[in-house]
Amino acid sequence: MADFADRVRGPLVPSTGVQRPLGVNDVEIEGGPLGRWQRINREASITLGLERMEQSGVLPNLRLAAGEGTGPFQGYRFQDSDLYKQLEAVAWEHCRLPDERYPAFVAESAGLLARAQRPDGYLNSHYQVVKPDKIFAELEYSHEMYCAGHLFQAAVAAARADCGGQELLAVARRFADHLVEVFLTGGDDGIDGHAEVETALVELYRLTGERSYLELAAKLIDNRGKGLIADSGMGPLYAQDHLPVREADTAVGHAVRQLYLEAGIVDVYLETGDESLLECSVRRWEDMVATKTSITGGHGSRHDGEAFGERYELPPDRAYNESCAAIASIHWNWRLLLATGHGRYADLIERTLYNAFAASTSADGTRFFYVNPLQRRADLIEDAYLGRRREWFACACCPPNIMRLVSSLGHYVATVDDEGLSVHQYAPGRIRAGEITLAVETDYPWDGRVLFTVESAPDTEWTLRLRVPAWSTRTAPPAGPDGYTAVRRVWRPGDTFALDLDMSPRLVHPHRRIDALRGCAAVERGPLVYCFEQADQQAALEDLALVPGTELRVVERDDLPGVGRTVLIEADGLLLPSSPPDGLPYSGAPTDLPTGTGVTVTAVPYHQWDNRDGGVMRVWTPLA
Amino acid sequence: MADFADRVRGPLVPSTGVQRPLGVNDVEIEGGPLGRWQRINREASITLGLERMEQSGVLPNLRLAAGEGTGPFQGYRFQDSDLYKQLEAVAWEHCRLPDERYPAFVAESAGLLARAQRPDGYLNSHYQVVKPDKIFAELEYSHEMYCAGHLFQAAVAAARADCGGQELLAVARRFADHLVEVFLTGGDDGIDGHAEVETALVELYRLTGERSYLELAAKLIDNRGKGLIADSGMGPLYAQDHLPVREADTAVGHAVRQLYLEAGIVDVYLETGDESLLECSVRRWEDMVATKTSITGGHGSRHDGEAFGERYELPPDRAYNESCAAIASIHWNWRLLLATGHGRYADLIERTLYNAFAASTSADGTRFFYVNPLQRRADLIEDAYLGRRREWFACACCPPNIMRLVSSLGHYVATVDDEGLSVHQYAPGRIRAGEITLAVETDYPWDGRVLFTVESAPDTEWTLRLRVPAWSTRTAPPAGPDGYTAVRRVWRPGDTFALDLDMSPRLVHPHRRIDALRGCAAVERGPLVYCFEQADQQAALEDLALVPGTELRVVERDDLPGVGRTVLIEADGLLLPSSPPDGLPYSGAPTDLPTGTGVTVTAVPYHQWDNRDGGVMRVWTPLA
Repeated sequence: MADFADRVRGPLVPSTGVQRPLGVNDVEIEGGPLGRWQRINREASITLGLERMEQSGVLPNLRLAAGEGTGPFQGYRFQDSDLYKQLEAVAWEHCRLPDERYPAFVAESAGLLARAQRPDGYLNSHYQVVKPDKIFAELEYSHEMYCAGHLFQAAVAAARADCGGQELLAVARRFADHLVEVFLTGGDDGIDGHAEVETALVELYRLTGERSYLELAAKLIDNRGKGLIADSGMGPLYAQDHLPVREADTAVGHAVRQLYLEAGIVDVYLETGDESLLECSVRRWEDMVATKTSITGGHGSRHDGEAFGERYELPPDRAYNESCAAIASIHWNWRLLLATGHGRYADLIERTLYNAFAASTSADGTRFFYVNPLQRRADLIEDAYLGRRREWFACACCPPNIMRLVSSLGHYVATVDDEGLSVHQYAPGRIRAGEITLAVETDYPWDGRVLFTVESAPDTEWTLRLRVPAWSTRTAPPAGPDGYTAVRRVWRPGDTFALDLDMSPRLVHPHRRIDALRGCAAVERGPLVYCFEQADQQAALEDLALVPGTELRVVERDDLPGVGRTVLIEADGLLLPSSPPDGLPYSGAPTDLPTGTGVTVTAVPYHQWDNRDGGVMRVWTPLA
Repeated sequence: MADFADRVRGPLVPSTGVQRPLGVNDVEIEGGPLGRWQRINREASITLGLERMEQSGVLPNLRLAAGEGTGPFQGYRFQDSDLYKQLEAVAWEHCRLPDERYPAFVAESAGLLARAQRPDGYLNSHYQVVKPDKIFAELEYSHEMYCAGHLFQAAVAAARADCGGQELLAVARRFADHLVEVFLTGGDDGIDGHAEVETALVELYRLTGERSYLELAAKLIDNRGKGLIADSGMGPLYAQDHLPVREADTAVGHAVRQLYLEAGIVDVYLETGDESLLECSVRRWEDMVATKTSITGGHGSRHDGEAFGERYELPPDRAYNESCAAIASIHWNWRLLLATGHGRYADLIERTLYNAFAASTSADGTRFFYVNPLQRRADLIEDAYLGRRREWFACACCPPNIMRLVSSLGHYVATVDDEGLSVHQYAPGRIRAGEITLAVETDYPWDGRVLFTVESAPDTEWTLRLRVPAWSTRTAPPAGPDGYTAVRRVWRPGDTFALDLDMSPRLVHPHRRIDALRGCAAVERGPLVYCFEQADQQAALEDLALVPGTELRVVERDDLPGVGRTVLIEADGLLLPSSPPDGLPYSGAPTDLPTGTGVTVTAVPYHQWDNRDGGVMRVWTPLA
């Protein structure tokens, strides 16, 4: 049953693993939030992104490198990567729903890249145009291999998606061969200060069979923690270069780097069977989940260095939770899910997808968050820049990264193994895996019933495994210890199976070690984390508190202005007297919240926030 | 009685003001913590600092500028300022207690500076050596006028202290005249991205009578918020260039910059009488104190940008509270105290001095904090660099800044006005103000009794005013509404007066709007904020909580190993069960702290922390 894996049209196609993926085109998503995100991603975001490739200097920079343009280099040294992620988004979008404009854009871009590429295969417009004497001489911050990695992923996508990718793949292979010559067989030692190329090299190996790509990825991972690159000025933890990967116990430094590195580590494990790699990655995962993960699935507690912090350092207001980190975390968890089959990784994918990730994009798909905090204060003076979604960024790593994930969402829905089919994420539509076709009807995540109808199936027994999220405490049928409910039988066309997840709203409390959340609670329902926004309150949100143990009431809204369809949750709150401090805000009087006026407070799904007034928001709210 | 002000040997000598300062040499401090700090500052810190002038490249850079050296420029573009602050420290130290090595160092440095100075008066080793074509062309981050300001302050100090300063003053005046030619009469508009020169120019005007220096300071202040300089990449708030100073309501951006700017604003008010300047500065002071000030008096909630944050954003763990910001805050408050006579400014000076500032230096005077947080976690992985005091820093702005303040502490103890003498800070020793000599006997801040003995006095009536800190709720004699207790009479030699401050330990609670401190309390006694350090506990500090309303017991220690003399405070605590999360640290169970084992917890003055095991520390501790 796992024989499709060889021709899967998706971002990750490992040759081993407990579970094996389906292609982007094997899963049709036909509605629900995921379907909506795919629609606005195609209609609004990708359209905007393609325009920005010209406006932000990405394509002009490459023309300079190709000797076809004039003017100064624009933007950052990693500007090329914006194009690569945009190309990958376009390729998966074409795989999902073909449109001739997509292969045309890929082919045109590939032509430009081929003309910009040096004869030896090197390709990076910044270094070719601005710093030709510094090529591979500033690995600590050059992002040259980081950009190469995104090129490889774009080429893999275009090839698998049959999206005008022949020339792009040739460009990628020439650069990959050059990296092999320099850093594998050529004897140069080093790493890129920003991990990413490792996972990309493994995928390029999977596509092409060229084993030196895998060997280079393995070497780059083994090279970490040896001090082979200079300090970028941010310290060795920033680039996870403080310890060899097998010795590091906890996620540190720049969150996106750590998370992409982990994806590469699991990728190398999947192809080489080196258990020590899986073991160290799982060890860090368990530590990170228990001590360094926001309730939204976001990662990175610090603006300074866009970094993880110390254990239990999880501030709601200054949580960085970069959109790219959510994407990288989904990549890593997906590899761990395929490698081990454990439902906990799919659980974290779901939490991240519906919260930290989904919040990154406005309801209309035209504005993006780079940083995804869990609280926005009243004043928004210092945070005027990052406090609201923006159309684009000088450092535009996030928007095209978001687009490539949304276009490829179908890839993350279900897997196969020798026993049958496992469904990890629930969305209405259709799943095809070899002889099996499964229709999915659901109003998830607004409703907890997911109805599966077998449309075609082999005549033999196979197992349908359905993930039961850890939050669903009363599920029918219940889950086994692996987090899945499983039915093994011969399935006939027309057979149905219903899963009922527990959609009761939940009041959630933080572990006592999280100092920044003491005395607060949050609201969840299904996979959605909620927040309180000023727009929905009857009084100033900063003066509202939750009544401990409050009843939580579900309010369905078909079209909340600015937000669209949603489910609100009402709770019992107290309106506290507002008494700004006169002098220092410290006194001998205890801060037990005084009794206030009873008032209803209303929560909205976190991923739908900042589509209205730009006012105060908080996920974690004080308990009266 | 105010006629001394004209010959005062101190850093700040305004020509107007409700209160007028005394010189560094008018107050002898003979013991107590302040006396101890002055002793180790002289014996250890200044000795270390003078060595570092050579080692860290400061003097070699100036030799390069003078055409006398070889090798590369070392360090930052503001490296010269380290020397200027060191010179100022040496000058005040000489004023306090003469030593021929000090004027010799000043004269030698002045000679080098004179040789490095361009004929037109310009002086900055970085720009002269590294970027001669960019002089005054990168004001947003050049620090050229910032360095000039520290030169002016050093020259003022050396002149007033009679510490070999004739040539230094000539160098300073040539540079100041050049700044006047370029930025006042020459028509160039601009500001320095890092405020500092404003307050320094006013002081150079006060010393020399050259009114163009004052006019330039006023112009630079009026130039803020007009967008005259480029964005340094940190946004206009970082440099307080987002709004004209009279329009800005709240302290923003880089804390040290904001606080030095405020000092300059009050300085210009003091010399010009422009009430709109005092008014806007007081408005921001009130807002800052109520919403952006740590209990230690520290300022700057963010590592990112070393910045103030939003209102009520006061995290204990990630508080930046730069040592230089504590110094700048003391400068600003001192000016406000002189300008208005309000005791609240002296209160904040005391809080800052004994806590945020004093914590910056190790018990032996050889190691310094750049960042002064209110919590240190168990792991100290990400924070290995900034988590403990260090001998020096690549950016060494803090250590010589600390030294110049400690050497000049006597200046901040007392003031005079037409009515008599006001004492703002209490330390054993002697205060001389014209015909008045007052001996001070006290074991403050360990004990609350301060005994004043008049040693000489005029035959006429005058008022002795003594500050009663706001924390002293039961004081004998009690304070008036201005925060001072005052006695007006004819004083005879031998007359004594005793002030008894309330030294009961206090459990202090944060305002409910400070989310990061919810459910916690802190301990204070007298002017000292306390913290819990792992070294003093019977169990892991992360598992300890305070019993609400706990009795606080004072324990005197003559020589706590590593710390020296101190007063510890014991409280009733609970040892909570340690239960690290398995999976995400969020659950349906409330986080009310469970009942634990009763245990005594022990607090040490915050300013004495990090002199022992480098373990966990917290000022704000959870209430059980």
